[in-house]
Amino acid sequence: MKRILTIITAVGLLSSVSAQNPADYVNPFIGSDNYGTTNPGAIVPRGMISAVPFNVSGRPNKHEKDSDWWSTPYSNVNETFTGFSHVNLSGVGCPDLGTIILMPTTGELKTSPGEYATSYSDEEAEPGYYSNKLTRYDIKTEVTASVRSAVNRYTFPAGQANVLLNLGLGLTNEQDGYLRITSNNEVEGFRTVGSFCYNSPEEIYPVYFVIKLDKKADTFGTWKKPPHYNGVEGNWMGYNGKTRLMKEYTKPLVGDSIGAYFTYHFDKETEVEVQVGVSYVSIENARENLHKEIANKHFNEIRTEAYNKWNETLSRIKVKGGTEDQKTIFYTALYHTHIHPNTLNDINGEYPTVGSGKIGHTDGTRYTVFSLWDTYRNMHQLMSLVYPDEQLGMVRSMIDMYKENGWLPKWELNSTETFTMVGDPAAVVISDTYMRGIRDFDTEMAMEAMLKSATQTENNPLRPELNEYLKHQYIPVQEEFDGSVSTTLEYGAADFAIAQMAKELGQTSTYKTFMKRAGYYKNMYDKGEGVMRPRMSDGSWFAPFSPMDGANFKPVTGFIEGTSWHYSFMVPYDAKGLIKLNGGNKKFVDKLQSVFDNGLYEPDNEPDMGYAFLFNYVKGEEWRTQKEVRKIVDHDYSNTPGGIPGNDDTGTMSAWLAFAMMGIYPDAPAVPQYTICSPYFDEITIELDSGFYSGKNFIIETVKTNRKASTIEKMELNGQPLKSYFISHNDIVKGGKLKIWLK
Amino acid sequence: MKRILTIITAVGLLSSVSAQNPADYVNPFIGSDNYGTTNPGAIVPRGMISAVPFNVSGRPNKHEKDSDWWSTPYSNVNETFTGFSHVNLSGVGCPDLGTIILMPTTGELKTSPGEYATSYSDEEAEPGYYSNKLTRYDIKTEVTASVRSAVNRYTFPAGQANVLLNLGLGLTNEQDGYLRITSNNEVEGFRTVGSFCYNSPEEIYPVYFVIKLDKKADTFGTWKKPPHYNGVEGNWMGYNGKTRLMKEYTKPLVGDSIGAYFTYHFDKETEVEVQVGVSYVSIENARENLHKEIANKHFNEIRTEAYNKWNETLSRIKVKGGTEDQKTIFYTALYHTHIHPNTLNDINGEYPTVGSGKIGHTDGTRYTVFSLWDTYRNMHQLMSLVYPDEQLGMVRSMIDMYKENGWLPKWELNSTETFTMVGDPAAVVISDTYMRGIRDFDTEMAMEAMLKSATQTENNPLRPELNEYLKHQYIPVQEEFDGSVSTTLEYGAADFAIAQMAKELGQTSTYKTFMKRAGYYKNMYDKGEGVMRPRMSDGSWFAPFSPMDGANFKPVTGFIEGTSWHYSFMVPYDAKGLIKLNGGNKKFVDKLQSVFDNGLYEPDNEPDMGYAFLFNYVKGEEWRTQKEVRKIVDHDYSNTPGGIPGNDDTGTMSAWLAFAMMGIYPDAPAVPQYTICSPYFDEITIELDSGFYSGKNFIIETVKTNRKASTIEKMELNGQPLKSYFISHNDIVKGGKLKIWLK
Repeated sequence: MKRILTIITAVGLLSSVSAQNPADYVNPFIGSDNYGTTNPGAIVPRGMISAVPFNVSGRPNKHEKDSDWWSTPYSNVNETFTGFSHVNLSGVGCPDLGTIILMPTTGELKTSPGEYATSYSDEEAEPGYYSNKLTRYDIKTEVTASVRSAVNRYTFPAGQANVLLNLGLGLTNEQDGYLRITSNNEVEGFRTVGSFCYNSPEEIYPVYFVIKLDKKADTFGTWKKPPHYNGVEGNWMGYNGKTRLMKEYTKPLVGDSIGAYFTYHFDKETEVEVQVGVSYVSIENARENLHKEIANKHFNEIRTEAYNKWNETLSRIKVKGGTEDQKTIFYTALYHTHIHPNTLNDINGEYPTVGSGKIGHTDGTRYTVFSLWDTYRNMHQLMSLVYPDEQLGMVRSMIDMYKENGWLPKWELNSTETFTMVGDPAAVVISDTYMRGIRDFDTEMAMEAMLKSATQTENNPLRPELNEYLKHQYIPVQEEFDGSVSTTLEYGAADFAIAQMAKELGQTSTYKTFMKRAGYYKNMYDKGEGVMRPRMSDGSWFAPFSPMDGANFKPVTGFIEGTSWHYSFMVPYDAKGLIKLNGGNKKFVDKLQSVFDNGLYEPDNEPDMGYAFLFNYVKGEEWRTQKEVRKIVDHDYSNTPGGIPGNDDTGTMSAWLAFAMMGIYPDAPAVPQYTICSPYFDEITIELDSGFYSGKNFIIETVKTNRKASTIEKMELNGQPLKSYFISHNDIVKGGKLKIWLK
Repeated sequence: MKRILTIITAVGLLSSVSAQNPADYVNPFIGSDNYGTTNPGAIVPRGMISAVPFNVSGRPNKHEKDSDWWSTPYSNVNETFTGFSHVNLSGVGCPDLGTIILMPTTGELKTSPGEYATSYSDEEAEPGYYSNKLTRYDIKTEVTASVRSAVNRYTFPAGQANVLLNLGLGLTNEQDGYLRITSNNEVEGFRTVGSFCYNSPEEIYPVYFVIKLDKKADTFGTWKKPPHYNGVEGNWMGYNGKTRLMKEYTKPLVGDSIGAYFTYHFDKETEVEVQVGVSYVSIENARENLHKEIANKHFNEIRTEAYNKWNETLSRIKVKGGTEDQKTIFYTALYHTHIHPNTLNDINGEYPTVGSGKIGHTDGTRYTVFSLWDTYRNMHQLMSLVYPDEQLGMVRSMIDMYKENGWLPKWELNSTETFTMVGDPAAVVISDTYMRGIRDFDTEMAMEAMLKSATQTENNPLRPELNEYLKHQYIPVQEEFDGSVSTTLEYGAADFAIAQMAKELGQTSTYKTFMKRAGYYKNMYDKGEGVMRPRMSDGSWFAPFSPMDGANFKPVTGFIEGTSWHYSFMVPYDAKGLIKLNGGNKKFVDKLQSVFDNGLYEPDNEPDMGYAFLFNYVKGEEWRTQKEVRKIVDHDYSNTPGGIPGNDDTGTMSAWLAFAMMGIYPDAPAVPQYTICSPYFDEITIELDSGFYSGKNFIIETVKTNRKASTIEKMELNGQPLKSYFISHNDIVKGGKLKIWLK
């Protein structure tokens, strides 16, 4: 009954748009099953806030936040709804946020999710809008958002209606919140969140909110449920472990299981709009955010603005041809690349800095949620090409973090460093951005920051294994399940990136040093096994060993989230060296092809996501790239809730798909080029940002010799034959047309 | 080694005082054992704040807050100290407050009371000052206080020194607090408290604080201990149930087990002064209270001011003669009558109102902590006689509560109504105050309030049994362990009090109605048993029954905290009627005497505390009053920690003692008289408040015919023979001398 996708619901409402708009092709349900961990909630591009249906609390839901490792507020296969959460992460693999939850109910007031949960139907979602019908209560819910504020609209039937703020409920592992009812239609407070991935458990912080209802409640109050005391004390507490309702309680209330309610008695069907403003700085800022973004605007205006923002963003790339489903997965992918990194600063420019927690100020956008181990591979390259203004802002934010904290980010979340995953990906992102010509940032400080993490051997939180890496020219196995091979390869990628930027800056000595280090990956290659293999500090190979070990995310020594097969070709910056290491073109191609043929390629995670493009480095074998990329697109992505093969990883999977479908892929981070595969559309027009690039548009035109044609026959760039399967960033951004004939 | 009482420690310090000062006779350790539940902490008269050694957490302490019903932050027989709590109740029987706890330690930082608890020695206390030595840390601690602020002074040895704010620890049953470190020497926040006696569990509220250290810390931080998760989630939390230290955390922190620390590294012995301001309105007010009361004053100045305030207060009564111990127990009793009711309003006049929690404002003092079932019997009478300004303020506060909440208080605690105990004692207090000539309050509204609780038969929180009372002219047994007899007698006392004030106001009809109701107690008297007995609604007597049932606070049907014997003579306002009911003078005297002779009198609770004075109503038997009162004073009170026979009940036991030792006792609430017993001192001078009374002093002079003389031989009032053993309030307050010859 639910999960009915209505792509176009707003035609009447949004008079300026037609059904041809890119935003109309977004299906926000894609990725909301199959561990994609995206959600259909309402959000604007890079919004701080989102209003997401929260359906992961309690059974009969298949996926339950406390009973499984569960990292998203919404699952498309779940069945019971317990509200809308207003700070959320999309496409991540660890639980956090998913809180500040509002729930509308009718009838007698219930305050426990187990008591008020309801099934739902009639789900609809489009960019900036989500709606459903709560079966048990006959309430229609709708949500929309601006950058830092959201609006919930509940259509209640006649009778008693309740709006609950359950501050105890949340996806985050962190406990406790604060709330204060300030009037019969407003509550303010904060919720403590943090401890993402259970790493850095000290990194907890408050997210502040102000919630205003557009109608004054008839009654209101708070609740608090104390923990159950088992000791003697408990005998005297008639309320031991029971929720206490506190009518008209207007003092500050703190605790783990607390909430606020506003109750109405309607004599006819009535809409209540609930505005939510958030901030990571203060309640005052949350109020200012709400006031300046929403003020007296009503739901429909905010919804229209959100839609228009999305449409404007997505229209930077226009496609013609392709099936409706192909357009849908393409634009949804582009949509997913604009959730994270997201805005951290308040409308007045304030944000919590990294480290000290002091309040910083920006005139631009302070970005947050940098899942860099993922996004360094392609997401930032997509931003540099199509949204260089955003990418510049992200790099500036990263350098500001260094200024604040003395270190570049690794997996930064709301100005906390979660130290999730391995490597030194910030260096790659900064260098890649620089190499693509986006340079209006403090390059001197950037190099200082990159070199710090690349050279400081003691107390280095970004590269804790640097000492071993430099000493052995690889990272030896130090304990079971460490990621010595993965980390060596990641350090190599970062070192290569540093070298590239150093060269460009004329720092020849640094260039040479780091290019040498970028070759250390070779020390991880076991000629006997023909793959990368963990190695002991005495140079011997780690045993027992199989390149299949570590499949399905099982812990394995040497590799992070993967097998040796998933890492053995992960040297995108030195494909030629890798080919040589593997015994030359033929052996390399055969071995790489066998990975695909033997089911050893996994499309659901990052390490091997560049594999399919490596065939392009062997002349005459480029058809394999076209074929394998097409196989992945067609097999692992679809216009269904399960249409992303694994965690979207804050848009990394989606960026892969978007590039792959355009027929160009930034295969080598910090190398300003794209390698070519076969596009899915007849014409793709990338609008170039005139603030950064000289060209107006870059067009990829595809001519098919037959309906099923998918193999490149020939190519022309601006009318000249193109023999290479690589095209430079520069060639693209000066504008022009790449014409590809498929056979 | 500990519990060394140093009565006079401040001679050198306090140059203006001599060893003869009343304040020097106070022993703050009296009542800190034997369930007296007073404490030796530092406080000023009616102070909002007190700094009390907290020694009831964990073993080997004999009395442990979580393992027993335990209602005081300090026990004199306990052995381990875990800090100073800054909001506290004195002399009560239920746990609450006992929180905002500061603890000094040395060496490695520990944040759990179980880890940092220490034994202690060298305890010293005087009014406004307490000190001890922490054995484990070699720290000397000292505390002193003003009305809303306290100062802790810790003398640390060289090395690492830590000042901890453990916001998780507390006597209160309520959980959760909020704190924020605002600089390297300041932390602010609030602690949730409430649910006194586990009654009214919804009545929780924050107490706000600002804590400033006079030296900037070298390092600082917070801690938080999450609950232990037993579910699947717990498997991923390396920190499950463990305390997390968060260095330099300056964001708001909420939760149950949270705290803040400030650490120093001293190269020599160093004093750190820690100032604590509190408020029940806001953090801002706590800061203002601290700033205006303490500002730049140092510990010694505040200590001197506190001592002087106490001395001034206690000097309203001056005694000559008696032993040192007698002077000590007398002035300590007077001291204990000035702990509660205490100040609730901030220095700017703001306070939380009852009911709505809205902020009220007073130009005077808003009093709180009204344990009226206790204090209506004698405490307020003592205030009316010696401190009429305070008593007027208390009555005004009670009437303001009615204005705010629609009801007079019963057991009011920081503007929450805990509904502890039975009856309608506010009416007695207001009438008694009026009858003693203190009338500068809104008498019209007072009568309105008194009549409301006395006549509103539905939804009456003060007299829930009013309907039954009026219907049957007694309250029948309604369920096991209800207090039907006790409540009937309490209603009678209140009705009598209302009648008295009505008569004085010329409201004759009301007077008559309520005098009739004041006689309902007779319907509880079982002639067969010769005692008060619970009765069924059909008029039959409740059975099985023994007038001994209910001893030692065992629950019993019909009586609250007592046996029939403890209640059967509790009709102080109608001794003559009671005598008649009991068969006339002889039978009455015999029966009453048998209560004392057979050990049926219990000196540790309120119901029978007037018994010894009843002999004065039978001519020729007054020697019994003198004898029994002296026996109680000599046997049940002493200059030892166990020197109060039971809960001091916010000064009620102490008020009894103070009156008894002066030789006058306000035996009948709402009757402006005192009955006479034999004084303990050669001369007692009560300084009369010229703002209320025409006399300057009232002197009770005692002439002993021999050293052990204790029986009254004759009396003169202002030189005229006094035959009666009763003296009117009016006769006292116009000044003069009562001369008593003892034989």
